[in-house]
Amino acid sequence: MINYPTKKTPKQNVHQTQASVKNRGMRFEKLIDEANRYYVDRDIAVIHKKPIPIQIVKVHYPKRTLARIDEAYYKTPSTTDYNGIFQQYYIDFDVKETSAKTSFPLKNIHEHQIAHLKSIHHHGGIAFLLIHLKQPDETYLLGYETLQAFLKRAETGRKSITFSELRQKGYAIKEGFQPRMDYLKAVSAYIKDKTTL
Amino acid sequence: MINYPTKKTPKQNVHQTQASVKNRGMRFEKLIDEANRYYVDRDIAVIHKKPIPIQIVKVHYPKRTLARIDEAYYKTPSTTDYNGIFQQYYIDFDVKETSAKTSFPLKNIHEHQIAHLKSIHHHGGIAFLLIHLKQPDETYLLGYETLQAFLKRAETGRKSITFSELRQKGYAIKEGFQPRMDYLKAVSAYIKDKTTL
Repeated sequence: MINYPTKKTPKQNVHQTQASVKNRGMRFEKLIDEANRYYVDRDIAVIHKKPIPIQIVKVHYPKRTLARIDEAYYKTPSTTDYNGIFQQYYIDFDVKETSAKTSFPLKNIHEHQIAHLKSIHHHGGIAFLLIHLKQPDETYLLGYETLQAFLKRAETGRKSITFSELRQKGYAIKEGFQPRMDYLKAVSAYIKDKTTL
Repeated sequence: MINYPTKKTPKQNVHQTQASVKNRGMRFEKLIDEANRYYVDRDIAVIHKKPIPIQIVKVHYPKRTLARIDEAYYKTPSTTDYNGIFQQYYIDFDVKETSAKTSFPLKNIHEHQIAHLKSIHHHGGIAFLLIHLKQPDETYLLGYETLQAFLKRAETGRKSITFSELRQKGYAIKEGFQPRMDYLKAVSAYIKDKTTL
């Protein structure tokens, strides 16, 4: 758990978080989680990360109130990691990050995630990916329809989305303050385009 | 995991599940999970139970691909257990069961669950409880507005919902076949009432 900044200045927060996050690859997810806490606290949206599914094998009960899990294994999730409600819409997405320098490899997206996003899209939900490019340090929302078009192309052609394609087809998310990764602005623009086009 | 019935007759399934479910109290939740698999398989709705949140303390990696969790603890969830999308609506609910014989005690519903359902309701989502009464073996959907009224009453009066009140204010869910706990019928009626009244 990172502490949600309430009384500190934004500059301090950035510093603090960068120092405390050992795994650099986790930073993007933590920013999304921080934004979600901000949205829930301000009643802007209710979006949560789902817990990682665990197969519990052995549990020890030293006392009635305290259970310790002694043996468990990670399970493969059947959905994406994030869902919730915003502007009355069902929102569903996954978070991706790449260290690649020119294009986002589609193999980063798992079969079950694609199937789930497709199903959500079909049911009228807002389905997308949030993609962080580490090297240029840029973040984009990629709507399901666009993702689908790139997956279609990958059947016979290029198996990745070039950064310039992402810049063109995605919704840019600028890093700022309070919350630092204010991705709902991009979601809002995406919903607007979906509902007016 | 109980097996989802695809090729078997409904009668066999009932028998099989009752025999395999050791904890009788879990049966209701298993029926909801079974219904959710049915809805996803038929593309009727996408509703999933969230995994139980776990605080992982120690992980052992005997091989790169196999991680075994050696120490972990249950965490208190901050939301309800179920959410998803149905008829384009964001759906959010929790499942409750009581052995009580005349009324459903409101203390069965935790503070964080009430706060979460309230927030979902406020954002335009469909928020409710599914309540199973073990003794008469009856199941009801209780919409957030009605729950709220009973919670209000509990501030100065009765701290439970009588079964006759549940029968009057809730939406009855009849146990049948395929899926046995076809609760989306009640959700559909609830949505209709909400949007036409």
